[in-house]
Amino acid sequence: MRIVLDVMGSDGAPGVEVSGAIEALEEFGDHVEIVLVGDRALMAPELARHGALPAGRLHIEHAPDHVPVGAAPSSVLRKHPDSSIVRGLQLHKEGHADAFVSAGSTGAVMAASLFVLQALEGVDRPAIGTMLPTARQPVLMLDCGANVDCKPHHLVQFAHLGRIYAEDLMGRTRPRIGLLNIGEEPEKGDELALEAHQRLSRESGLRFVGNIEGRELIQGSCDVVVCDGFCGNVVLKFYESVAQFIMGMLRAELGELAERPEIDEVFRTLDYSEYGGAPLLGVNGVSIVCHGGSSPKAIRSAIRVALQSARSSMVDHIARELSSKEPV
Amino acid sequence: MRIVLDVMGSDGAPGVEVSGAIEALEEFGDHVEIVLVGDRALMAPELARHGALPAGRLHIEHAPDHVPVGAAPSSVLRKHPDSSIVRGLQLHKEGHADAFVSAGSTGAVMAASLFVLQALEGVDRPAIGTMLPTARQPVLMLDCGANVDCKPHHLVQFAHLGRIYAEDLMGRTRPRIGLLNIGEEPEKGDELALEAHQRLSRESGLRFVGNIEGRELIQGSCDVVVCDGFCGNVVLKFYESVAQFIMGMLRAELGELAERPEIDEVFRTLDYSEYGGAPLLGVNGVSIVCHGGSSPKAIRSAIRVALQSARSSMVDHIARELSSKEPV
Repeated sequence: MRIVLDVMGSDGAPGVEVSGAIEALEEFGDHVEIVLVGDRALMAPELARHGALPAGRLHIEHAPDHVPVGAAPSSVLRKHPDSSIVRGLQLHKEGHADAFVSAGSTGAVMAASLFVLQALEGVDRPAIGTMLPTARQPVLMLDCGANVDCKPHHLVQFAHLGRIYAEDLMGRTRPRIGLLNIGEEPEKGDELALEAHQRLSRESGLRFVGNIEGRELIQGSCDVVVCDGFCGNVVLKFYESVAQFIMGMLRAELGELAERPEIDEVFRTLDYSEYGGAPLLGVNGVSIVCHGGSSPKAIRSAIRVALQSARSSMVDHIARELSSKEPV
Repeated sequence: MRIVLDVMGSDGAPGVEVSGAIEALEEFGDHVEIVLVGDRALMAPELARHGALPAGRLHIEHAPDHVPVGAAPSSVLRKHPDSSIVRGLQLHKEGHADAFVSAGSTGAVMAASLFVLQALEGVDRPAIGTMLPTARQPVLMLDCGANVDCKPHHLVQFAHLGRIYAEDLMGRTRPRIGLLNIGEEPEKGDELALEAHQRLSRESGLRFVGNIEGRELIQGSCDVVVCDGFCGNVVLKFYESVAQFIMGMLRAELGELAERPEIDEVFRTLDYSEYGGAPLLGVNGVSIVCHGGSSPKAIRSAIRVALQSARSSMVDHIARELSSKEPV
């Protein structure tokens, strides 16, 4: 398997990406190769810091440009065709690699992925899925920001995308699908949730378990929870910040006691970097988006997700199942 | 000041409410009276448990009915005119009390408040405001569930309601108003957020500080954050559950160590019961909604909020400022 990694995306680029790639090569063994895409001159000193590199398993692809922070996603292809994001996705599209990973701006990675890889037949809106740590096992939430204004049938498609990901990547059998909502009863919610609830209830091939309230998310009472990308993004970012906030307060109150391994263990459960990147589901390829604030560990985790996605039949599975759905 | 307390609403009704009322009378002194509204027969043993009661400061108003869990909010007035919620609100409306507090179903309290107290002139949609604990001082978020499908001008009204509450009740000077959104830039967001951002930017009398992302909420970088009631409700319930979840994990890992006062202190900061009830802002009166799972302490805190609201000129202040706004 060969993974393309955009090294120009994270807040600590390219050092963080290079370190993450080298950690991944050590962890995932001989059958994995990584192609680093980005500015060769900027990569060189980072690579030199790591000394002897795994021969034949780490490749460099020079991309003279990168997508600057704040660039409009819609302009990425036109204004930055030689950026690390676009070049990296093209390598994947052309079959030179099996998956693409980037910690660049989510909007830019998504727009470029849609343009270069294209949406699969039967998928109107590819969606970003994110693993939320819960009291039981992680829950996949989607959409987490790719689509802000959604129609009910988009949420039904998200449910199928999430179901297939949960089956193929998360090892869940007959995944339970929940709808993020403000009450348990089917008649609760805004217009989108009301109609989505009805459609999900009668959709074949889905194990719909009903509405999931904000307070239930953390219980892990389903495998996949669907919502529009606005609410999903707000909840996701809020969750990430709450754990850090509570840890900060505990440190202030407890002093050295906060460094105990037991407390560390709790916060590791809440640490997004353990779960790595978020897949963009519904495109014709594997595109994994990482947090801009990623650590080398988070990059390594994202490479793991990319590997698992490429090895599984996830994309073919989505293509097969979604293309046979009736158009809405 | 005289506060009407519905004693039939919480999960532990009427015992929790009666205990909370007696604690409040002890705490808030001689110039406060409380009217308990509910089933007299159910209240009697709870009152008896408390022994000698403050003479002349605790009153009983019998209401033969209560609104059952799951009742449709729209049917409360028609089907339960003799319920503790409706009777209690009428006492307030008729001037026999200065504020109303209930831990009954939010939908039922809101619908009955709207019907009995009525919306103030210039307020299309009264909104529920909730205090969120943050790294600095608490932030008022609204709407937290009264209005699921909002228009941009509703969010502008929420901003004014929140501003006045922050000035009059939270002691904030020129409160900073944020818009919950999925990015910092004005061009980020769904249709609602995009248009609301523009309107808030040009609205006079508001100190609009721009978009607030999910991760910024916890920073306390503004005083009031506005959003539609769907997203607000999801975030609020999620927040309540996260603190409990993390505390549970810490207990499991730390054992007795988790009982240390320093850890307790951290979780007290996150404890909604410290902040008490959520005001329904924009009605012609003071109506405070409590969590169904309220403790006596939470009821006492809600009575404090009711007292402060009644003592301040908040309702007159809202009436004066909102009625002079141009219709949208």
